[in-house]
Amino acid sequence: MRNLTLLTDLYQLTMGQGYFNENKHEQLAVFDVFFRPNRLITYSVAAGMEQVAEYLEDLHFSEDDIAYLRSLGCFSEEFLAYLGGLRFTGDVMAVREGELVFPYEPILTVTAPMVQAQLVETAILTFVNHQTLIATKAAKIVDAAGGGVMEFGLRRAQGADAGIYGARAAMIGGCVGTSNVYAGKLFDVPVSGTMAHSWVMNFPSELEAFRAYARCFPDGCLLLVDTYDTLRSGVPHAIEVFRELRASGHEPKGIRLDSGDLAYLSKEARKMLDGAGFPDAIICASGDLDENSISSLKEQGAKIDSWGVGTKLITSADLPALGGVYKLAAVFENGAEIPKIKLSDTTEKITNPGVKALYRLYDGKTGKAVADYITRAGETVDGSKPLEIFHPVETWKRMTLKNFTVRDLRVPLVRNGKRVSPPVHVGRHAEYFRAEKARFWEEYTRRDMPHIYKVDLSPALYALKAEMVKGRGE
Amino acid sequence: MRNLTLLTDLYQLTMGQGYFNENKHEQLAVFDVFFRPNRLITYSVAAGMEQVAEYLEDLHFSEDDIAYLRSLGCFSEEFLAYLGGLRFTGDVMAVREGELVFPYEPILTVTAPMVQAQLVETAILTFVNHQTLIATKAAKIVDAAGGGVMEFGLRRAQGADAGIYGARAAMIGGCVGTSNVYAGKLFDVPVSGTMAHSWVMNFPSELEAFRAYARCFPDGCLLLVDTYDTLRSGVPHAIEVFRELRASGHEPKGIRLDSGDLAYLSKEARKMLDGAGFPDAIICASGDLDENSISSLKEQGAKIDSWGVGTKLITSADLPALGGVYKLAAVFENGAEIPKIKLSDTTEKITNPGVKALYRLYDGKTGKAVADYITRAGETVDGSKPLEIFHPVETWKRMTLKNFTVRDLRVPLVRNGKRVSPPVHVGRHAEYFRAEKARFWEEYTRRDMPHIYKVDLSPALYALKAEMVKGRGE
Repeated sequence: MRNLTLLTDLYQLTMGQGYFNENKHEQLAVFDVFFRPNRLITYSVAAGMEQVAEYLEDLHFSEDDIAYLRSLGCFSEEFLAYLGGLRFTGDVMAVREGELVFPYEPILTVTAPMVQAQLVETAILTFVNHQTLIATKAAKIVDAAGGGVMEFGLRRAQGADAGIYGARAAMIGGCVGTSNVYAGKLFDVPVSGTMAHSWVMNFPSELEAFRAYARCFPDGCLLLVDTYDTLRSGVPHAIEVFRELRASGHEPKGIRLDSGDLAYLSKEARKMLDGAGFPDAIICASGDLDENSISSLKEQGAKIDSWGVGTKLITSADLPALGGVYKLAAVFENGAEIPKIKLSDTTEKITNPGVKALYRLYDGKTGKAVADYITRAGETVDGSKPLEIFHPVETWKRMTLKNFTVRDLRVPLVRNGKRVSPPVHVGRHAEYFRAEKARFWEEYTRRDMPHIYKVDLSPALYALKAEMVKGRGE
Repeated sequence: MRNLTLLTDLYQLTMGQGYFNENKHEQLAVFDVFFRPNRLITYSVAAGMEQVAEYLEDLHFSEDDIAYLRSLGCFSEEFLAYLGGLRFTGDVMAVREGELVFPYEPILTVTAPMVQAQLVETAILTFVNHQTLIATKAAKIVDAAGGGVMEFGLRRAQGADAGIYGARAAMIGGCVGTSNVYAGKLFDVPVSGTMAHSWVMNFPSELEAFRAYARCFPDGCLLLVDTYDTLRSGVPHAIEVFRELRASGHEPKGIRLDSGDLAYLSKEARKMLDGAGFPDAIICASGDLDENSISSLKEQGAKIDSWGVGTKLITSADLPALGGVYKLAAVFENGAEIPKIKLSDTTEKITNPGVKALYRLYDGKTGKAVADYITRAGETVDGSKPLEIFHPVETWKRMTLKNFTVRDLRVPLVRNGKRVSPPVHVGRHAEYFRAEKARFWEEYTRRDMPHIYKVDLSPALYALKAEMVKGRGE
């Protein structure tokens, strides 16, 4: 594993030297990661926390790194010596990977001495922004497909990590496998794939190409049928080879369509396969798919069992960045919390100040999520008593909850610089997401015109914020 | 450096076993990388070849990799043993990094035994697609800004590599620096950055925050002025600190605007700075910029000297994937070339068959590029004789060139598995791009409604293609 300590913006280090010179470098600071609303996203699927923990545990500047920083000519020897001994000694609270999260929620909070807390901002955002983006996109695609989605995007990913960690995130969002062998090994997740057009082109005929493949993989044989002419050549040749396979005691897996009118072709191919006695042969489709084209294909009655989704998943093509931010929420002076706020003329850009907690409230009868609730740290929420919640901007919108259960959405990820629990298999995060999503009414998670899920502030947090806005940040 | 041999799609390995079983694994094959047209791109800036060379030289499966592949249960021991000893032994021809390239051009060609050539497809596409995408986007942004663009996108990049190699590609496309310290060290390119809003928020007042920063960095002091109120607080405070700096013998660098109406604010800030005697203090702008917003700001007379561009550059937000492909062009049997073609009902998707060469033709008088010319391998082009070129689809569009010079656009990158030349500094690629772009009429490179630059086929290549299309690929 590469050490990524230098994976930061230069200003984190220039500010670090500034804090060091001002003797503020050891001041305890609290920073929150959160997302702002985006019209393309109804909920996000948190991911990347595992990489955050790995990175923080491994944080240290090598001698070589220090020599490089020295060469920039803007750091003092005192500060460089300090960096040479620096490790991450702070705490991180974060939502679980696979957690459904909403705008403004502090999904990850770093509490650490100022220089450390600044230094790690960039990489934390890189990991969490990226994986949350792809897990969210995957969830939308899997939702449209109803399952059976495979991640096929490596060749169009924005570099190796985008492919590798994108595949990981896609699994959390509900994909059943990836074509990416590196990711398959690293995360122990299913890999899939059979043949490309070049295989077919490289034999004297399509039929010979299919036969050669069936000889090599008599079990699980899946043939790509669109190289020349899907219905007049590809499917008939596949059926011919499937018959030969069956005669030798093997059942074929199915066919893959990669171009043309997938609705029409899949329906015709289905009839041909069924008519030839292969109702169990699956039809796999690929080629520039996303949640919209999949949804449209299903509406048209396409007979597709399995979806290979590439470019638009691995790049989250319609929204290639989530824009998560990392904002100062508080500093501590002599053990006392001093809340901090970022003001803006745009109401939505004003941050929630202070050290906070994040709860999810579920209806006691249905078990379904009703609202998320951000409080100041230390506030408790008692589900046995009525609770009035209100919209954090349009405060006249109010609602009283009775008989509800409460769950703290965040768990300790890192404490005193060490990860709290060992990593778990990515499949666990995927299961977690699936189970939690089932606790949401579809009205909140559907792609089109969803009900906006409530994320409200406690009266105490609201009062603090109002007071600080009035005092212009003081 | 991580070994990325497993960074491939599973089907490359299943096909590999198929070729191995059919005894075709050592058959020499030729694959071309090329891009298809995209309405958002008038030209592309080739990049990523350095990473291709690095990756190919390092290609080998570790014992651990082989054990993992064995665990998948679909590979024979014979094939696994073969993979265990596999190295890349082939040749790669490619355009230089920083080369302007156009649709359908074979910008990189791999000639290698079939299994190797297939195996490396995915990673080559990942590197070249990603870096070419970002270099191209950077070139568009730099073109709009007229220079002074810094890459600030790491936190929004799709993973660490997207940030690191994206920064590299951005430098090739003409950026003058990056905020990414890791990239700065790895590629020895300028890094820049000063302070974030959190710095200002973390002092009792903006003025104190600015003073503390100036104490730490009396030279090159650049202050972020939009935390509270740009014109009523930020700029006046900056001027106050700049005066103090000057009194102590230091000249300030300038200010950064990160929000609000950058046109209005920059013009007002410019007046204030000039009026206070700081005409040399620069104004740096950042915040959701791209080529369109920069171009609009310049039209409005914004007084901005330097541009920090983040999300939309590092993700190429309006086009997050180039979609470069890797297609079989030929195989060799008994030393003889057998051209291969991929047919399609969509004319534009039919590939150019056979082993090819790629030339750029420049007008003898103006020195400007007139057309690119794809030929069969071994054809030569003589600039002293008239040459009739024609559109590869609308063949009645013809034009005769007289007195032109010819340049072979491709150079050997890897020969017998070894890189041909040592890596050069990324600044050289940037210079190369700048010089070559100057040889194009602006009509061809402008963002809006460009003239389409001609990429034509030689009569011999055209004839081969026509014949193969007629023969349906035989």
